[in-house]
Amino acid sequence: MSGWPVRYELLHVCRQSGARLGMVHTPHGSFETPAFMPVGTQATVKGMSPGELRDMGAGILLSNTYHLWMRPGQDIVREAGGLHRFMNWDRAILTDSGGFQVFSLADRRRITEEGVAFRSHLDGSRHVLTPEKSIGIQNDLGSDIMMAFDECTPWPAEHDYVKRSLERTTRWLERCVASHTRPHEQALFGIVQGGTFADLRKQSAREITSIDLPGYALGGLSVGEPAADMYHMLEEAVPLLPSGRPRYLMGVGSPDHLVEGSIRGIDMFDCVLPTRIGRNGTVFTARGRLIVRDATCAHDFGPLDPLCDCPVCRDHTRAYIRHLIKANEMYGLRLASWHNLYFLMALMRQVREAIREDRLLDLRDELRDRGTFDKKIRPL
Amino acid sequence: MSGWPVRYELLHVCRQSGARLGMVHTPHGSFETPAFMPVGTQATVKGMSPGELRDMGAGILLSNTYHLWMRPGQDIVREAGGLHRFMNWDRAILTDSGGFQVFSLADRRRITEEGVAFRSHLDGSRHVLTPEKSIGIQNDLGSDIMMAFDECTPWPAEHDYVKRSLERTTRWLERCVASHTRPHEQALFGIVQGGTFADLRKQSAREITSIDLPGYALGGLSVGEPAADMYHMLEEAVPLLPSGRPRYLMGVGSPDHLVEGSIRGIDMFDCVLPTRIGRNGTVFTARGRLIVRDATCAHDFGPLDPLCDCPVCRDHTRAYIRHLIKANEMYGLRLASWHNLYFLMALMRQVREAIREDRLLDLRDELRDRGTFDKKIRPL
Repeated sequence: MSGWPVRYELLHVCRQSGARLGMVHTPHGSFETPAFMPVGTQATVKGMSPGELRDMGAGILLSNTYHLWMRPGQDIVREAGGLHRFMNWDRAILTDSGGFQVFSLADRRRITEEGVAFRSHLDGSRHVLTPEKSIGIQNDLGSDIMMAFDECTPWPAEHDYVKRSLERTTRWLERCVASHTRPHEQALFGIVQGGTFADLRKQSAREITSIDLPGYALGGLSVGEPAADMYHMLEEAVPLLPSGRPRYLMGVGSPDHLVEGSIRGIDMFDCVLPTRIGRNGTVFTARGRLIVRDATCAHDFGPLDPLCDCPVCRDHTRAYIRHLIKANEMYGLRLASWHNLYFLMALMRQVREAIREDRLLDLRDELRDRGTFDKKIRPL
Repeated sequence: MSGWPVRYELLHVCRQSGARLGMVHTPHGSFETPAFMPVGTQATVKGMSPGELRDMGAGILLSNTYHLWMRPGQDIVREAGGLHRFMNWDRAILTDSGGFQVFSLADRRRITEEGVAFRSHLDGSRHVLTPEKSIGIQNDLGSDIMMAFDECTPWPAEHDYVKRSLERTTRWLERCVASHTRPHEQALFGIVQGGTFADLRKQSAREITSIDLPGYALGGLSVGEPAADMYHMLEEAVPLLPSGRPRYLMGVGSPDHLVEGSIRGIDMFDCVLPTRIGRNGTVFTARGRLIVRDATCAHDFGPLDPLCDCPVCRDHTRAYIRHLIKANEMYGLRLASWHNLYFLMALMRQVREAIREDRLLDLRDELRDRGTFDKKIRPL
């Protein structure tokens, strides 16, 4: 179909790594890729204002269909004029299908060919999520990019189960396409499944891309499998995706995975990691993750990360942020999340710059050697 | 003593009400009075950044000695270079004495002439707070204005008890003055007690002002007594305070009390009300308080207060803020507190403007007639 509302523009391919520098154009502005999408589950990126997200360079946010469906309900969002107006965010929004949350959050779920029956995690009420229902809600939300309703197969899973599941995901994609009422305003992305089986990843990639869509995602990764398996699946599946479409690796957001994913041709990422670990008092630094709530930070009047130029590192010390977090102060959680999001946005700027300069593998090695990928900060 | 670090400049007396327009000069800048001081109990005004507080015109914050003593401990704040640097606030700071919190929060407290023995509300550890200890902690915190250690007598209380208590408060004030090690950098304010007894208020005002200090406060009001009693006490005590010093009414922050206090010659106020009711989903409006978490706001896409020009009312709707609060989202609490603080800062700007124009009684009547003082919003 021509005239899709979301279009990918390839700007440069890194001669060293093969990574892509690109631009995704949406009805709510364009953003450079590879890009990290902050997650605003309940129509808010925890603690952050839209202005702060704009200031750190976020061009697109992700929001969760399941949560908005359950609360406040998509009718209220539609009445508000769509999710952009509801949350006062004028740049791009991607919504997931709700499938992942139904599988991971809801109680007593039952999967059939029709869809998934489950009980709400909020009040126990019964619901059924189907491809048509998911697309209907996302049409109400008015996101720029909608995700197909799929089954995110768990890890580990049997080859036989994964094969049956991915084939159902393909049939569900066809139903998503058929029920999509706003194809000129909202782009629908298909999702490649297949677990950690190379043959199934390739089968799913072929099936999903046989349906012409403005973008494709890889789902069912970063769900507990070893990183090497994830990288292997990217190497098997990404070459089967059309080069003229953005490629989105769902649920990925640690610094190493963002860089390694970019090296393997991924354009878009999302993850709750920066806000989740922030709320638990852990922050990213160029030398690895720092548990700022630890006693070691009590008298430390330096910034969270001496190499970071974010407003949090400019204005506040580790000792102060530790105090706030220990005292359960909202502002402490806000500062840790703010820094972590900024850190990933800055990392992606570095990645894009390295692609432009054909040196993404060098950057990866530099970051690794500095400790940026470490789970625990290296002492100076 | 000459060369006090905090100085009051009288700019104008309202010919209609007698209220004072003034300016308080401190080592960290000057602020116009009557002024409302946002409360940053644990070295943070709940959810707000220093920049946001500056932008709404806050010239002085209040922070709580008891809380900072218990956590993180005044040694860490002193090491940071004082409270201003610890919390990155370069305008004025007032600290209370810790007495009020010891009386209201701590467990198993026992009052003697020496001070108050109590157990921490955090871990049950034993401590003693004395005039010397309170001043020592406040000297470490480095606030611009320190409050004397007093007993905030509860309401109701017997005349005999209140009399003995206020006389001890006077003796404690003498010990505060004697132990203050930084009188050229930090101003110590004395506190007038006396409950709701006119004779005792006057006795306390005479005793406290017999000690020459850069400012005086009225304590033990807004602790449950009828508003008429509080106004009566102001009318009895304020005329006894020297006109060349700022007058601070402690713990007062509802719109009606701020205006009525200003009319009775008060220059400074503080209260946790705006952030506390904000966190509970209630906001001030020009037509009275709105419970934004109520179902009536679910489909209301107007601002919290159509007459408010704050960033929250500019950017977000009642329906969105209600959703955030119902979903326990930090950003919702932040928005409600932000609006409420802004509302009181804007109210005080109106009060100062009315004093300048000799029409504060008219403003009081206009606000009352509009519903600004109402506990429940008036339907349009």
